[in-house]
Amino acid sequence: MAMKAPRGTVDILPENAKKWQFVESKIKEVCDRYHFKEIRTPLFEHTEVFQRGVGDTTDIVQKEMYTFEDRGGRSLTLRPEGTASVVRAFVENKMFGNPNQPVKLYYFAQMFRYERPQKGRMRQLNQFGVEVLGSDNPATDAEVIDLAMTCYRSLGLKSLKLVINSLGDQESRENHRKALVDHFKPHEHELCRDCQSRLEKNPLRVLDCKKDRDHPAMGTAPSILEYLNEESENYFNQVKSYLTAMGIDYEVDKNLVRGLDYYNHTAFEIMSEADGFGAITTLAGGGRYNGLVEELDGPATPGIGFGMGLERLLMALDAENIEVPLDDQLDCFLIAVGEEAEYESVRILHDLRNNGIQVDKDYQGRKMKAQFKAADRNQAKFVLVLGEDELQKQMINIKSMETGDQAEIPLTDLTERLQQILKGGNISE
Amino acid sequence: MAMKAPRGTVDILPENAKKWQFVESKIKEVCDRYHFKEIRTPLFEHTEVFQRGVGDTTDIVQKEMYTFEDRGGRSLTLRPEGTASVVRAFVENKMFGNPNQPVKLYYFAQMFRYERPQKGRMRQLNQFGVEVLGSDNPATDAEVIDLAMTCYRSLGLKSLKLVINSLGDQESRENHRKALVDHFKPHEHELCRDCQSRLEKNPLRVLDCKKDRDHPAMGTAPSILEYLNEESENYFNQVKSYLTAMGIDYEVDKNLVRGLDYYNHTAFEIMSEADGFGAITTLAGGGRYNGLVEELDGPATPGIGFGMGLERLLMALDAENIEVPLDDQLDCFLIAVGEEAEYESVRILHDLRNNGIQVDKDYQGRKMKAQFKAADRNQAKFVLVLGEDELQKQMINIKSMETGDQAEIPLTDLTERLQQILKGGNISE
Repeated sequence: MAMKAPRGTVDILPENAKKWQFVESKIKEVCDRYHFKEIRTPLFEHTEVFQRGVGDTTDIVQKEMYTFEDRGGRSLTLRPEGTASVVRAFVENKMFGNPNQPVKLYYFAQMFRYERPQKGRMRQLNQFGVEVLGSDNPATDAEVIDLAMTCYRSLGLKSLKLVINSLGDQESRENHRKALVDHFKPHEHELCRDCQSRLEKNPLRVLDCKKDRDHPAMGTAPSILEYLNEESENYFNQVKSYLTAMGIDYEVDKNLVRGLDYYNHTAFEIMSEADGFGAITTLAGGGRYNGLVEELDGPATPGIGFGMGLERLLMALDAENIEVPLDDQLDCFLIAVGEEAEYESVRILHDLRNNGIQVDKDYQGRKMKAQFKAADRNQAKFVLVLGEDELQKQMINIKSMETGDQAEIPLTDLTERLQQILKGGNISE
Repeated sequence: MAMKAPRGTVDILPENAKKWQFVESKIKEVCDRYHFKEIRTPLFEHTEVFQRGVGDTTDIVQKEMYTFEDRGGRSLTLRPEGTASVVRAFVENKMFGNPNQPVKLYYFAQMFRYERPQKGRMRQLNQFGVEVLGSDNPATDAEVIDLAMTCYRSLGLKSLKLVINSLGDQESRENHRKALVDHFKPHEHELCRDCQSRLEKNPLRVLDCKKDRDHPAMGTAPSILEYLNEESENYFNQVKSYLTAMGIDYEVDKNLVRGLDYYNHTAFEIMSEADGFGAITTLAGGGRYNGLVEELDGPATPGIGFGMGLERLLMALDAENIEVPLDDQLDCFLIAVGEEAEYESVRILHDLRNNGIQVDKDYQGRKMKAQFKAADRNQAKFVLVLGEDELQKQMINIKSMETGDQAEIPLTDLTERLQQILKGGNISE
């Protein structure tokens, strides 16, 4: 047991790591085009950051956090989501004073949630996310949603569904809250214990409950959309029209409330509709969180962002049978025969590698034939052979594994000639 | 307090993140040329992995680990170093069965050590490291050292010092161990309490002690090099001659023992000799750890690796005044004037970004002049202006911020023309 990765975590092995690298670099490119910049926050925060920044009544804070005391008695928590940490960093580093507003940030980060592990739900998960702080322009909401969709599209995903909703401003939410309490109060004793407590503290959470989701009062609950005031409705309409202008299809789902306490106005989720994706289809979720910066002791600053699970993104790629283009070929494999050649080959490897050429050799004392097999397994494009004869003549043999062409090259010219050959030059010219 | 990053941790902000990205991509390129492949292990492991894999008598395990129980009562520890996790993953995933041996791995990972924070020593630190499993060829030791040096050199570092030592094989170590006990026994009561206990369990650790480093018996302690058996001496000689073949300078330091229990044969450290680097000059350290794979329940497999602190690498770049080339320019900034143009600009942004062009706009409702200033602050190469007039004509104005040249472009041609212009094409052709 001890010598296994902890439950709910996995190793990303080399054959998969290349896929991760590709996905991350594509997403980085998109962020660059959208002019978002990277931020990296610590793996853990003072627990209070999440209690205040995610919300005391959420499942995350109540049940799922990895919280521990450090040796100095501080209560620390491994970050369960990305927004609270970024907002803490925004406040602490006074980024609200940057003349370039809004501040458009992205991150790649591991998140930690103590949940029952299942397909698509791990205890350590990898997320990409963005946060835009300092703009209450509905065009920003549209930009953030557009960026998320573009990340998926740039990787080739097609079966996507975007769902949006508005949670309104404070006034709208207050009115809706009252209506929800009035609606559920007569059924209070039929709801689960958690929902009974939620009804007092945060009735919106009731709509999110997995246990009570089939209770008849759920379907008839008042929708926030009926309680939006004029300003909130205008805001939502503008977001929708910007999405339309960009040709981004969406559905409005009045029951979309998101699992975190701090959202208002725009909320959205992106789902995979690919066959065989499995039960958990949500790929990304986010929304606007005006008020959160104040909650974390910063000046009044509007904000919006999303988090995107990368494990699920990879699952979605698989579900749509999208092959990520991976270059698994090795440029050269160097075979040395004899002790002196072995010694010389270490120098050659060093020189080639320091001149931009990818090359490997055998370290297992294998026979020549086995070394050729190793070159094959590593998908080497070219094999270099250095035997005692060649060394005597200060030459090296090169063979193309694709065409079978061979040539002898003076050792002193090797780097230059290999550079030409790898660019497509003729092997024996 | 709560709203600050925990003591000993820092945020990497956008202006620095680009530097990190550059350093990481350079190192990745080196790994690729040396044919090392990435692995990613979880942030935490069962505590026993480090107790067994780092060593119960080390400072790390005794004093510096972030250990906590999860909600299921498991003892978990945030990884304090990279090797034990990678070896655990190697064993668990049966990578010893891979026909391509040795397995050459690299990682970028955060490490966590509860130490007194000071310059160059953080509680959360970023490390790059490699591990080669399955080769006991001294050429592998040389390859690993070469890779570390090449990473630094490829970033422009020059003031580097490589120090190596051999800790010998088990027999050599046992003989040396006895000699150390004999040497220190008469001084036992003069040593610190930790060293008294180390003298029993692991006398090599005494040489590492920070408290007793000035005790006269330290300088006269028997060196491992005097106790190397023939095989160990041959091994060390071969490593040295390979380094020489590659033109890599080194010094032998017989007191170099490294702070982890599991090393044998080759141990090495790379230091910065740059002026003004500060007291802690070690940039990277590593060595061979034959026996560790067995310790973590795997089949007998030799191993060697190193860990390289990335915070310290960045400090070394600063100390040598090396400027990392960062592209902070923005391709285009789009200025929209009027409500209709604002709406249209969202569509244009989407189109340009989805055609590979980096572009941003104002979201703060700023006046035109302030928007031009924002374009300047963002170092935009080109500014696009869409006013009511232009919109009427379905044209857009483009201005080069470098030359001041301007032109009008039909909206329908914008993407194509901008792509040409950004490649260096004439603005008004």
